[in-house]
Amino acid sequence: MQFELTTDYLELLRSAIAEKNDHYLNEILNDLYAADIAEIFNQLEFEEAKYLYDLLPEETTAEVLPELDEEMREQLLASLSTKEIAEQLDNMDSDDAADVINELPEEIQSEVLSQIENIEQASDIADLLNYEEGTAGSLMAKELVSVQVDETVSACIDEIRKQTDNVDVMYAVYVVDENERLIGMLSLKKLVISQPSTKIEEIYDAEIISVKTNTATSDISEIMRKYDLVVLPVIDTLGRLVGRITIDDVVDVIREEAEKDIQRMSGISDDVDSSDKLWRLSRARIPWLLVGMCGGIIGSRIISSYENQIQIHPEMAFFIPLIGAMGGNVGVQSSAIIVQGLANNTLKGEKLVPKLMKELGVGLINGLICSTLIFGYNILSSDSINLASIVSIALITVIIFASFLGTFVPLTLYRFKINPALATGPFVTTLNDILGITIYFLIGRLLYNTI
Amino acid sequence: MQFELTTDYLELLRSAIAEKNDHYLNEILNDLYAADIAEIFNQLEFEEAKYLYDLLPEETTAEVLPELDEEMREQLLASLSTKEIAEQLDNMDSDDAADVINELPEEIQSEVLSQIENIEQASDIADLLNYEEGTAGSLMAKELVSVQVDETVSACIDEIRKQTDNVDVMYAVYVVDENERLIGMLSLKKLVISQPSTKIEEIYDAEIISVKTNTATSDISEIMRKYDLVVLPVIDTLGRLVGRITIDDVVDVIREEAEKDIQRMSGISDDVDSSDKLWRLSRARIPWLLVGMCGGIIGSRIISSYENQIQIHPEMAFFIPLIGAMGGNVGVQSSAIIVQGLANNTLKGEKLVPKLMKELGVGLINGLICSTLIFGYNILSSDSINLASIVSIALITVIIFASFLGTFVPLTLYRFKINPALATGPFVTTLNDILGITIYFLIGRLLYNTI
Repeated sequence: MQFELTTDYLELLRSAIAEKNDHYLNEILNDLYAADIAEIFNQLEFEEAKYLYDLLPEETTAEVLPELDEEMREQLLASLSTKEIAEQLDNMDSDDAADVINELPEEIQSEVLSQIENIEQASDIADLLNYEEGTAGSLMAKELVSVQVDETVSACIDEIRKQTDNVDVMYAVYVVDENERLIGMLSLKKLVISQPSTKIEEIYDAEIISVKTNTATSDISEIMRKYDLVVLPVIDTLGRLVGRITIDDVVDVIREEAEKDIQRMSGISDDVDSSDKLWRLSRARIPWLLVGMCGGIIGSRIISSYENQIQIHPEMAFFIPLIGAMGGNVGVQSSAIIVQGLANNTLKGEKLVPKLMKELGVGLINGLICSTLIFGYNILSSDSINLASIVSIALITVIIFASFLGTFVPLTLYRFKINPALATGPFVTTLNDILGITIYFLIGRLLYNTI
Repeated sequence: MQFELTTDYLELLRSAIAEKNDHYLNEILNDLYAADIAEIFNQLEFEEAKYLYDLLPEETTAEVLPELDEEMREQLLASLSTKEIAEQLDNMDSDDAADVINELPEEIQSEVLSQIENIEQASDIADLLNYEEGTAGSLMAKELVSVQVDETVSACIDEIRKQTDNVDVMYAVYVVDENERLIGMLSLKKLVISQPSTKIEEIYDAEIISVKTNTATSDISEIMRKYDLVVLPVIDTLGRLVGRITIDDVVDVIREEAEKDIQRMSGISDDVDSSDKLWRLSRARIPWLLVGMCGGIIGSRIISSYENQIQIHPEMAFFIPLIGAMGGNVGVQSSAIIVQGLANNTLKGEKLVPKLMKELGVGLINGLICSTLIFGYNILSSDSINLASIVSIALITVIIFASFLGTFVPLTLYRFKINPALATGPFVTTLNDILGITIYFLIGRLLYNTI
């Protein structure tokens, strides 16, 4: 029953397209959901996708378009006239339509808007275009059912009947006062089980969570997750109901935020994915590589100040990578835990000093384990107690310091309102690399001089 | 309007608890949602939370309990009699109740179950306990409204009225045949606008997406995200409707999966958070540290085979950290992009060779930029053309190799059905460290010998 896109299936489709076997293709496409069709399109060459696109009825293409990869959607839209695009937008939810029109070249945006036949839809879309990216306004749709508080259940049901074409899935009816200000909601369940003559004011629920048009999308996902909401009404500064955000849009936001965090942790500065252009991919990665390179240069300066020591004891150089890598690994482990705690709010409140102490405790335990093991290895393999002691003492010191830095850096960034995930990747690694080398050679000089 | 938990607010509450100012506390608690109260509880000491708990009405505590941190919930439940726990479970949704009972010590689970007054609820919970963690069965709730296909709208509304106590929020009515097999659904909107005498079979929607009880939770989140679903019915092997999963549970799953990926990338092997015990935190981190240490030991062996060279040219040692760090950084960047592409399905299909070529292209561009810069730095700072050439040639080679490995390793793991995120962190870094050092010293020997 579940659709799965396999290579064989794709090959079958491709040859049917090559043979222009419309009958067979129509049969297949008829059975699929828009999301499945979009998945197929994303794997085809543009000409193949365009061929299928032309086979599909208008209502289906309007559902498929918003689900496509940006690149494929861009190519398909470029192949349509402004009139055809306008027809597509007319069939979409207002939020999807606004997203699509936002991607069009600016010079044709107003031309497309003016060709949308349904004036109300056109004005809804134009309205949505005004809101800033990353705010509730940019995420909301205008399709909703609202009812005046002094009406009856039967009037409300008539209203729903009227709006039935606009609103695909309905979760609740919003209750507004005579100035269109949101004052509550009415669940469909309550509507179903109430008598037609009942007044709305007797049955509506005045406890309602809403957001302003300028609320940040990250706050919205947090609110919907925390209060287990499926739909969230959006109000303007006067408290008037202007739109609603549904959970499916927010699920995408949550996923995108997680992806961005992973990219930040990996030292990729822009929001890119693997289908982007070569040049864009390079540019998104070079900044953190340069930061890492500066770290490497500082490291080389530190080591060069111990040049004599290396000439006498070249075995000191053997363990440079081990010390650096362990510092980096421990630092990333610590900061990942902190970044995660900050992201899901479990670190709010004032338990910060115990947190630092705990990380240091973990560092101490793991440092002891690792440095004992490496001491054993060095004694067995080289029987130089000097080197074995230097490496082990340096290692445990580095691990404890790295635990501290890995905890301290993201917390400090957070306090200065910089995204702490930024610090978890190359930044902490580089810092720990430098720190590790410094500690290692310092301890080396101390021990070789004293023994 | 939105609740925010500040340190001041928490202090105020704490002193009111210390003064046993019940009147004030009741007033505050009355205005809050269960999720807000849970957030407060999580920040309080157990005795303080317990004091507030005793002030709250039973229906509220039943909503607060499932939202608490595991530790706080465990302490609160331990302070209740089995009878009191049973009363709480009676007021919960069946899925929350099953989760809570799963956390209780095994010896009291059946005692608690037998004391639940509502027999139907007790049997629902007992049923849910049978499903394996990580499957649809473990995520679903039993509360749903279903109707036989041969009934009428008015019979359906009567059914909803009857179940009104059980089901908090209703999204749809499920339509089943005479054998309780799921055959479709009826949106509440359609129910509202249809005449009471209409037959369900005339208006229900036979296109319905469902999952089996043993479907994995990661597949469920993917299905709900892809098809923009708010609720998903669960069927048994005979196709009978047995429960439903709502999006709010899945949002939590999506978030947890993202967190787990971040932990895997950071070299933390178990699912831990910062509130876990010291020992558990250590144990979750030590495996990858040991892998990193083995990598460091291999690195030390490689360098030690160039001991003579280091004695003659100690400046070779200066750039060991730079080469290692750059290999690591580039590898993580490449594999993060691939892991992300695999996670959101944009890499399915067969475009793998172009993907590898693209990563190599990015590696070439960034490698050229970095090695040119470091060449300039070395010429200016040391005027040894030998060293400058060795570092730059090694750097660009390492970057290109690291791009390749960072792409190849996660793709290979994925092919062998191992989670590719596992490879993005310490594994790729360690591999690239070793590779980087090998390349660096090889090129060093070649160039110093030829010049």
